[in-house]
Formats: sequence, C-alpha cells, structure tokens
Amino acid sequence: MKGRKLLMIPGPIEFEPEVLQALGAPTTSHTAPDFIASFGNSLRMMKKVWECPDGQSFIMAGSGTLAMDMAGANLIEPGDKALVISTGYFGERYAELLKRYGANVSILRSEPGETVSLSVIENALKKDKFKLMTFTHVDTSTGVMVNPKPIGELGRKYDVLTVLDGVCSVAGEEMRQQQWGIDMALTASQKAIGVPPGLALLVASPKAMDAWKNRKTPVGNYYCDWTHWLPIMQAYEEGRPSYFGTPSVNLVAALEVSLKMILAEGMENRVARHKALAKEFREKIREMEFRMMPVNEDISANTLSAIYFPESINASEFMGGMAKSDVIVAPGLLPELKSKYFRVGHMGSVNLSDIVSTIAAIENTINQLKNLP
Amino acid sequence: MKGRKLLMIPGPIEFEPEVLQALGAPTTSHTAPDFIASFGNSLRMMKKVWECPDGQSFIMAGSGTLAMDMAGANLIEPGDKALVISTGYFGERYAELLKRYGANVSILRSEPGETVSLSVIENALKKDKFKLMTFTHVDTSTGVMVNPKPIGELGRKYDVLTVLDGVCSVAGEEMRQQQWGIDMALTASQKAIGVPPGLALLVASPKAMDAWKNRKTPVGNYYCDWTHWLPIMQAYEEGRPSYFGTPSVNLVAALEVSLKMILAEGMENRVARHKALAKEFREKIREMEFRMMPVNEDISANTLSAIYFPESINASEFMGGMAKSDVIVAPGLLPELKSKYFRVGHMGSVNLSDIVSTIAAIENTINQLKNLP
Amino acid sequence: MKGRKLLMIPGPIEFEPEVLQALGAPTTSHTAPDFIASFGNSLRMMKKVWECPDGQSFIMAGSGTLAMDMAGANLIEPGDKALVISTGYFGERYAELLKRYGANVSILRSEPGETVSLSVIENALKKDKFKLMTFTHVDTSTGVMVNPKPIGELGRKYDVLTVLDGVCSVAGEEMRQQQWGIDMALTASQKAIGVPPGLALLVASPKAMDAWKNRKTPVGNYYCDWTHWLPIMQAYEEGRPSYFGTPSVNLVAALEVSLKMILAEGMENRVARHKALAKEFREKIREMEFRMMPVNEDISANTLSAIYFPESINASEFMGGMAKSDVIVAPGLLPELKSKYFRVGHMGSVNLSDIVSTIAAIENTINQLKNLP
Amino acid sequence: MKGRKLLMIPGPIEFEPEVLQALGAPTTSHTAPDFIASFGNSLRMMKKVWECPDGQSFIMAGSGTLAMDMAGANLIEPGDKALVISTGYFGERYAELLKRYGANVSILRSEPGETVSLSVIENALKKDKFKLMTFTHVDTSTGVMVNPKPIGELGRKYDVLTVLDGVCSVAGEEMRQQQWGIDMALTASQKAIGVPPGLALLVASPKAMDAWKNRKTPVGNYYCDWTHWLPIMQAYEEGRPSYFGTPSVNLVAALEVSLKMILAEGMENRVARHKALAKEFREKIREMEFRMMPVNEDISANTLSAIYFPESINASEFMGGMAKSDVIVAPGLLPELKSKYFRVGHMGSVNLSDIVSTIAAIENTINQLKNLP
Repeated sequence: MKGRKLLMIPGPIEFEPEVLQALGAPTTSHTAPDFIASFGNSLRMMKKVWECPDGQSFIMAGSGTLAMDMAGANLIEPGDKALVISTGYFGERYAELLKRYGANVSILRSEPGETVSLSVIENALKKDKFKLMTFTHVDTSTGVMVNPKPIGELGRKYDVLTVLDGVCSVAGEEMRQQQWGIDMALTASQKAIGVPPGLALLVASPKAMDAWKNRKTPVGNYYCDWTHWLPIMQAYEEGRPSYFGTPSVNLVAALEVSLKMILAEGMENRVARHKALAKEFREKIREMEFRMMPVNEDISANTLSAIYFPESINASEFMGGMAKSDVIVAPGLLPELKSKYFRVGHMGSVNLSDIVSTIAAIENTINQLKNLP
Repeated sequence: MKGRKLLMIPGPIEFEPEVLQALGAPTTSHTAPDFIASFGNSLRMMKKVWECPDGQSFIMAGSGTLAMDMAGANLIEPGDKALVISTGYFGERYAELLKRYGANVSILRSEPGETVSLSVIENALKKDKFKLMTFTHVDTSTGVMVNPKPIGELGRKYDVLTVLDGVCSVAGEEMRQQQWGIDMALTASQKAIGVPPGLALLVASPKAMDAWKNRKTPVGNYYCDWTHWLPIMQAYEEGRPSYFGTPSVNLVAALEVSLKMILAEGMENRVARHKALAKEFREKIREMEFRMMPVNEDISANTLSAIYFPESINASEFMGGMAKSDVIVAPGLLPELKSKYFRVGHMGSVNLSDIVSTIAAIENTINQLKNLP
Repeated sequence: MKGRKLLMIPGPIEFEPEVLQALGAPTTSHTAPDFIASFGNSLRMMKKVWECPDGQSFIMAGSGTLAMDMAGANLIEPGDKALVISTGYFGERYAELLKRYGANVSILRSEPGETVSLSVIENALKKDKFKLMTFTHVDTSTGVMVNPKPIGELGRKYDVLTVLDGVCSVAGEEMRQQQWGIDMALTASQKAIGVPPGLALLVASPKAMDAWKNRKTPVGNYYCDWTHWLPIMQAYEEGRPSYFGTPSVNLVAALEVSLKMILAEGMENRVARHKALAKEFREKIREMEFRMMPVNEDISANTLSAIYFPESINASEFMGGMAKSDVIVAPGLLPELKSKYFRVGHMGSVNLSDIVSTIAAIENTINQLKNLP
Repeated sequence: MKGRKLLMIPGPIEFEPEVLQALGAPTTSHTAPDFIASFGNSLRMMKKVWECPDGQSFIMAGSGTLAMDMAGANLIEPGDKALVISTGYFGERYAELLKRYGANVSILRSEPGETVSLSVIENALKKDKFKLMTFTHVDTSTGVMVNPKPIGELGRKYDVLTVLDGVCSVAGEEMRQQQWGIDMALTASQKAIGVPPGLALLVASPKAMDAWKNRKTPVGNYYCDWTHWLPIMQAYEEGRPSYFGTPSVNLVAALEVSLKMILAEGMENRVARHKALAKEFREKIREMEFRMMPVNEDISANTLSAIYFPESINASEFMGGMAKSDVIVAPGLLPELKSKYFRVGHMGSVNLSDIVSTIAAIENTINQLKNLP
C-alpha cells in the first residue's frame, strides 16, 4: 500500500477518493438495472469527453495495449498499408502490433524529444496510398505531444483512417475527435481518465466502423473482434444488458464517477488546468538546471514530463533518493536512454499541491545528494 | 449499487469484504515494492490453488474470454487440428475461437444437461491426431460438470495438449492440474477465485509452454502473445518489475487477498464446502418440484445450478418476482432454452446463509405467483 | 473482521454498504460547506424520522448511554421527583442515572417479559407529582416493547416530562413523538438508525427545552449541558459552523446517508417491514419449541427477540455451536437470567434473507447438538 | 466530500488510508474475538505511546471535551481546590469545566502567545494546597506549547494531581507521562493520534486512580464515572468482553491500525518528524512576513501553528482565497483575536509534501490578493 505517498508517475495516478469508493463498493450483477445505467452513461459520456458525438464508444476489460490492439485487429487486413508516425516507445509498439495483422508498415521516426514534421508526413501520404495511419498524441516515453489537428486534416485529405493513441492524453490534452477528423481515439483508464488500471477505452468514427464492416477477411483476433463487442455496447447504451464477456463491473462503476467529475469540471477548464500546472512544473524544473526531453514548449505534453538528468547528478542515486521521499516518480522508458532521464506524470486529479510537492521532493533529493541542508 | 441484496449468479458473486477493501485502496505504482510482492505472491499462490507446481501462471487485464483466447492465440497455428468437447455455450464459443487462429476444429457435442462419454472422446482421439483438445470443466450455461481426470489421462495417452476451461470451476471444484495432466487451466477473477471481474488467469504446463516456444508461425494476436507476457510474469515472480501493459494494480492487490484466504481455508476444505452446499441446494430445489438441467448428481456442478422451470411456473413472472426479492439470480443462457430455465451461482465465499436465503426467496416468489401466503 | 458472517445482535447490526462507504471516506473539516450541509440535513431528517416537527434534534459523539445521560443531566435538578417504568436492564440503569443528578426516583418494575400496566402507572402519577417519567420503548435485555402512545397521554394528563428511551426502537418501531406527547426520545446510531456505533441522538420537545431553560441550578455535567450543544445544533441547522467539541465528521456523514435511505423507504413501510419480519421470525422460533421472553405478541418488539432456551438445550453448547455458524447472535443480558436465554437483533437493513439465515443457523446448531443430520 | 483537498487544520487531519479502510470495514460485534483483541491491543499500545507503562488507559465514545470532562468528573469533589494554567481557549474551558464539579478554581493566565512562568506556578502551589492542576500541553487556539516536564515535577513536589490536556499534542509532541509525573494525559482521536473524530482517550496514573477510589462523594456525572468504565477497560485488556455502553467498534478498529503505525514509526522518530516539519513550516511562514503567535521557538507547538496576518493582508479576503485553493486551513479561535490570525495543523501523517503544499497555497493566495502573477 502506498499510504499517503504521492503517485506522480505517468499512470496509474492519484485518483479521486470518490472513484476509489465506487471501485470498492459491493459488486452488482452485470445485468442489474443500476449497472446497465452506469455502463450506458459511461459510453455516452465518453463521446462528450472525446468530443465525438457521432462516434461509437467501447469499454473493455484490458490494458491500454488492448485498446491499441483493437485498431490493429479490426481495421487491418493482411496486405494493408499502414503509416506509423513514431515519437517514441509507443510508436514502435504500434508498428510491431500492426504487422501482426498483416499490415505493410512504413514508419516515420523522430529523434527522442522531437516530432515528425507535417511535410514529411504529407510527403509519405502523397507517395503511397495508406489505409491507416497512427500517431501517439502524447508519447509516455518521451513526454512529446503531437498536435492531432493537422494530422487529422491530412488523414481526411488523403482518405486515410487516422488512429490517435491517446493513452497518455485523453481527458488531459485538447482533443476534438470529430472536428479534427480522427477516426479512432483510444486510451486506458489509469491515465487522465482517472480510474485504476484495467479498462481499455476507445471511440471510433462512423468511417472507422464502416472500414471494419467492409472487411473482406475475418478479424484474426477473437477477443478484440468488434463483431462481439458492438452489440454489447449498443445494448447497454440502449439500456439493455447483453453478454459477450463479463464487464469489469466495479471498474465501470468507477469510470462513471470519474467521467461525471470530468464533465462537471468541463473539458475546457480541465485542459486549461493541465496546461497551467504543466507549465509551472516545467519552469520550476528548468530553474533546477534540468533539461526537458521535448525540445520546445509547443511539443511538450501537459500530462507528463520526461526530464534529462544534468551531468552533475548520478541517476541511480537520484532515483534511490526519490524512493525515500513522499513522492513517487517514474524512471525512463526508452531502452537506449533509460538511465539518462526520468518521468513525472501530472494529469487527472493533479493540482498545485501535487506540483509543488514534487518539485520540493526533487529539490530535497538533489540537496541530499550534494550534502546541502 | 446492489445494497444488501445477495448476488447469487454464476459470477460476479458475493466477495469477501477484505477483497473489496483491497480493491478500493489507493492505487500504488506497478513498480512499487509492495505491488511487486503482491503480483509475485499471486502468481505463486495460483500454482498452489491450481495444484500445478511446475506450471507458469499468467495474470492479465481482461475477461474470462481473454483467458480462453490465450490458448487459441498461443497454442494454435493455422491448420492445426483441435478437438472441442462441448457441454454448452462455452464449448461452442471455444470452437469458434480456435477457428479464428486457423484451427481445423472437430466438435463432440452433448445434449444440454449431459456430457460427452469418454469412449466417444477416445474414439475421436484414436481416429485423428489432434494438437489440442478443450473441454469446459463446468459449463456456466448448463451447470454440467465434466470430470477432468480421465480427460487429462486421455490427453496424455494420445499426446494432445489438454485445455481446461475452468472459468466456472477453478477454486471451487476439485482440480489437480499437474497430477491429472492438464496443460492449461484458465479462469476469470469474478468466479470461485473471489475477485471482482477484470482479470484473466491461467496456469500453463511446461508442455504447453514448449508447444508455444516451438511454433513455426508468429502468434497472430498481439495482446495475447506470451512473448510479451512471459518475461513480465517471470520478472514479478522473481521480485523485479517489468512492463508490457500496466497491470490492474487494484485488482491484483485484491487477488492476493483472495488467494491468501483460499489457501488459508485449504483447497480440500474449500471443495468440500462447495460440494456440501451445492448438494443441500439441489435437494431443496428438487423438493420444490424443480428439475435440474444436469441429468444426474455426478455431473452436477458444485459452483452453480441450472434449473428448469416446472410447467406450472411462468418463467418471466418468476424472474420478475425474484427481481423484487433480496436475492439476485441469473436467467438461462443457452439461446434455444433461455426461457425454460434459470441459474444460481453458489461459489467462492458462499455459505449456508446464502443457500437458505436463496431457497427462501425462490419459495416466496412461487408462493406469491400462486397467491399463497 | 467479521467477513461475510451475518451480524444479528441487537446492535451493532448489518449496515448498508453505502453507509459504510460514507464512513470510510476521507474526513473533511467540521466547518467545510459539505459537512455543514450533512450535519444540518441530518438534524432536519431526524425530526422527520422521530415525527417531531417542532422538536430540537441533537447529535453528539457518544454511546446510547450518553443520550440517556442528556435527559438526566439537563432535565433533573436536585430533589426532583422522577418515575422510572422499568421493563428490564435499561430501566434499572435509568433509575440509577437519574439519582446521580439528585432525583428522587420511584420505580415501577415488571417481571422479565412483561410490562407495567397503565393503571399502575396512572396510580403512581396520581399519588405523587413527578417532574419526569422515563420508559424503555424496547428493552434490549428482554425484547419487551411498551406502547408509547398511552404513556405519552398520561404524561400530558399529569404534566410530567415523558422521556422515551428508544435506543432499540427509533427508526424500527412506530413512534410519533409529537402526536403522542413524548418530550424526549433518544437513541444510538448503531441500532435501527443503521450507522456504526459512536453517535448519541435525541429529539427534545419545546416543553423539554423549556424545562431545561427554567432550571434554577446549573447543569452538573459539563459535557452533557445543552448550554453548549444547543447553539451548535442551531448553527448547523442554519447552515453555519460552530464549535463546542469536534463533531464525529465521518459518523455524521454516514448518518446522513442512512437517514436519507430511511426516509426514502418511508417510516410506514419501514415499520411494516420490521413487523412482518419479526412476526415471521417469532413464528419460526416457536416452531422449534423455543419460548419468547415477552409473554405475548402485543408486547413483543419488532427490532429484537429475547428467546428462552428449552430445557433440552444446553445454553453454552448452543452458543458455542452458533459461534461456528455464519450468523452472530447475542447472549442474554439480564444478570439473573443470563444463561437462560439469548437475543437476536432484527432491525435496520434487515431483510427476509437475514431472517431465514438466522433460523437455519439455529436449526443447524440444534441438530448438531442432537447429533441429527 | 473533500476530494483531494489537503486538510491542514488542527484536527481532523489527513488520515492514513489504512486507517480509513479499517473505519469503513463491516462492523463486527463488540463481543467478537477479533474486536476484543483490537480493543485490548489499543489499550496496551496507548500506554506505550503515552509512555506510561503503569497507567490505566481508557477509550470512550466522545469528543476531546469528554476526555477533559473525565478528569473533572472523576477527580474533583465539591470544594476541592484546582489550579488551571491557561495558555488560551482550552485553559479557560478547563476552568469552567472544573467549576461544574464544585472545584474552587484558581487560574494562572498568560497573554496570547506566551506561557505562564514556572516561578508563577510554583508560587501559586506554595501559597495554597491544590488537589489538582491542569495545563494545556499545546493550546489549539494559540499554537503555544508548554513544557510538561517541569510542571510534572512541580506536581510531584507539591503533591498535586497533574492533568495534561494533550488533545493537540499526544503522539505528536514529546510526552513521557510516567517519567515526568503526569497523573492524567488525555486526547482525542482526530489529532496526532490519526483517527477520525469520535473517541476520547486518556491514560491515568495509579495516583490518579487512587484519588478517584478514595472519593468521599459519588461521581456526579453518570456517563463519565470510572465506576462504569474501569471494569470494561480491564476486561477488554484481559481478553474478555464486557458491557457498559456499546464501544465505537469501527473507530476502535481504526485506532488499532493507527497506533500500530505510530509504534512502527517509533515515538522518537515521530516527534523528530513533527519537529523538523514544523520548523520548516515556521521558517517559510516567516519569510512571507507573517508573525507567529507564540513569542518564541521554544514555546511553539510542533503540531499546529497560529499565525498573525500582517497589516497588509485583509483576513477575510485571505480566508476566502484559501477556500478556493487545494489546502484547507482553519480560522482563529480566540474570540478576541479571531480575525487577526489563522491556524494550520501539521500533525499525525503530515509529511514534507503537506508543508510545501500549504506554503504554496498561502503564497499563491497572497499573490492573488496583491494581483501578482
């Protein structure tokens, strides 16, 4: 048990007490009227948070990787061409994933801390006809944020299904799925959505659903196949129970609570809060002579920060010192740079207290390493 | 919220308060020492509950269907021959699932309430060389229990990978995986394991792991691929964190609590308790002129009961009456017989009070339908 | 921890999960707007449950005995004459308590299982001028229920302050404080009010408040003095915080949840439920050849039962057997009869399942003692 | 519900999640073996936290004021002389309280923010023979800490029963009851003991118990009388249940958890942590040009701080601004100075994050009032 330590990693995060209480409540039947309402409400509220009124929402037991897998399994047929825009670990993962379903994958890679330029993307789209394109809105490994709007527009222009991996962004960063032409936006519960890990969440556009309906080959993954899930989501949204796999009753009840809190705050306010706190955090971090991995403010995520250690700091001593503090941060994730940086999540229920506590814990740890008071 | 109503469906079930409290505790990092210990303990305790000391346990975010999918995805290569022994809904599901991975599936079906005889199974195994054979230990749709021991022995004799679908049996029915020669035994958290839904659980024998290692083709399902999961399970069991997908921290913490309670009771005692209470339930049910779907005691599950309505009872009136009682039961699941029977789960933390409460609620409902006092 | 055992003692009882969740929620400030609302709502709802619209409600940290003490401390001055109508342990306690504050106490005692007749009470009131009269609505030691209505009427007729000890009755038995002329009705949270132990609750009539205001001597008990508590209750009811002692924030939040559930059910329905279940319980108990302590149905409480062991049963063997069952019952409380009877609480959230579970546990225990199957 | 706001008032405080979980667990019987163990353990652990191995501990449902009342009710007989050393609101309260029980009270008052000098106390003790002397270890209204050691020594020298009001100190400040000759040390659960409000706690020395045993008059307060409570505490400490009032089962279970955590940390470490964090807090507060109410460091409490507003700050604007922040602080309590200062609690589970969060919230609020960025 973490006790009162502050969990400032890029997921799971600090959850609202109301969410945890819903999680720990006695489990009801997945066909009970109350639960049907919870599930239906959650599906409807997701479309508001995603800003995709005409989309189809899905809630499944699984991790964020399962949500990624839903796109590969349902939208890729053997031989399909796919373009992966990779800004880190999770772009590479998406490329590997799509290949499993027979995709012919092209990757556009940026250096760590950078993004792929729009002209490079457009060039690729011009040269070749892709069925599907993926990008990582916020890469959890680098803290780099990609602006989804122009990519969605390119997707529309070149008629490519555009998949936004929003595991570390949805409900934390600005994202207007329908307006921006995103065909599928996926996430996991334990990030800015604010629910303990265990739910894969996504909203698919009508165009994405059509692409799936028009497949010529069966979906090669049983659990992920929308054939099983679509009638379930439709039923619960219409207030009827239906069965494919037993839904994660407690997690869905917790999701409903969190989505209500998100909509009560309002997505504009929520994004503004994430921006203001992230900016404050980055400023304070830079004052301590750390360097952010993202090369400029415009591509810095507001949900997490990836921070290079300065030369003067021994990484493992620093992480050891932090482990003794009241604040939990995460190590690097990119294999080649793992020991050169660390990561701090600041999303969901994050507030000013969390930011200053984290800064103070970092300062203290450095002072202890330097034998300062 | 279900309040104090008693949840007597074949999962989710009534959970121990300690399990729900672990679920609702503040989420820690998936790399925190406490959580690493919880995960490792759970993997180790599973092997004790499954009675498979040399097996490899897996814990993944997902429903029971995902656990079924793990076998199909990892053990089947296109063209493999598979034998499905079907005693209901979930046998049919397994056949469909295996086909997705290219299996050439033969099905041996029983009538509802019956099992497939061992001679029929052995004949099939003699006639054809199968790579893999599945059977449903307890079919949640029919309440039929299949004795795993002779099937495991046939599996050994004919060198077939034997997969036990134990979604509705593990931790409730007698199951000695290693001794009986079962190569994979899978379940879901919300059944006799006693944890709210959201975890897919399985233990694979060394032979199953070898079959996977010796595949000639890659696993066609990204999320299910043991390539990703095996190093994670090994790491946590050895006390190190590792990352593929974020584990369901709270559910794993709850799982550890439940497994500890299961082992504290002892599997012998636990199975004996399930048997005694199920027998008591069936006796009382028969006294009310209901008929059990399983045709005899030997093949009646101890974890749930499927019960035919007598002619004198209008099924929908009965279910409506039960909905007003303090006890929640489940409708039929077999599409063709849906309105002819209902189901009662009695597993996990079930005790005598639950049994008598359920019997009383059924009696009362019938009396009300008959306008009796 | 009690796990899933059923708590069927005369308090604490089985609480609604929503109440327990409110109890375990992070504590807020006793001056926070949310808490002020909770406290104010609770005070207002109490007057509805007590049916005393013009009364003054009080909520204090303490046990039911503290609630009894509030009457003695605030309404008795040295030399005052008090009449105690005693139907068991708690009548005797009230007599002793009132003496501490200088009362000149007369007691009218019934035999265990009986009540004091109205004519005896009226005779006493005729012979002497009493300032205050107390009676135990339901005596937790005997399961005897006294009808408050005629006693309230006698109190009015003879101008005596009438104090109803409702520790084991309020929110479970019919009680119309204002209409029936009761001047103070007190209880504890852990009984039919449905909240874990720790709150003393009472509603005082304007006449009771006047009697206190017109005291000639100061209240001799610091903690109980309404001088301290009245402004606090008035402030919270008006939406302002105020301070005497820190209120039990979590218990008050839980109380608000429980009172809402009580009013949502409706007091008429709630009393009817208690009556029907208690009748069912008594019938089943008598079928087993037990004898109830209350000598007839009219004076049998609906919130608990006190049950004599038949000759054929060894009391300590029976209690030992019950301790191994799933149901927790209470031993006798009257010192002189302690080993001759036991007690079962059936109040608050009690439902049919609880009744049949308790009956079944008792039957089983007896059968085991008799070596029956 | 407070959500994730930080509760930094002088009680209730931020509680450890484990404590809240114990509080919300299903209530068991007050005579169940588990509960008997919890109660007994708590009584024993209190003597360790209080450092009074030969003392008698008491746990009762009630607020801190009830704990104060226990001394007055049990140790004072009409006409007894009592000396109250008052450093604020709670000294005045103790004087008033003792008078209720017939004490002849002399008060030694300090100015707000100061203490009464030892020579003044000794002079008073020389001049007159007092039965009992009280002092407030930390006065919650002023943040002034009195050193108990020399007062305990004076108590011994002049043979006076010395009562330490430790509501805001026990388990946060250094206190060695037995060694320092304190005859009764009392507190409330919601302060440094770390349990939601509702329990009055105290440890009495053998000398205090003897004084009560040798009373010539009965205790004039029924609920507080040790005659009722002593056998209960002795029984639970010996592992037997006993009944006077129903104990607050859930709060006692939570108390056991908190006391275990306190002893696991160790009282030396715990006091050192409180000192270090309080010092840090005061330094940062002074840097912002606030002035502490205690006139010097030696008499500054480590559990809370009372802070004067500078002239430049409008108190109600400041409190309004803080109410919008993530941190909850308390207003002044001394009636005459109420609007001139505010109070911050920093005790129990307090850590560095809490301190820096509070400082940041105060800074931000001031900047907003001054229209600074």
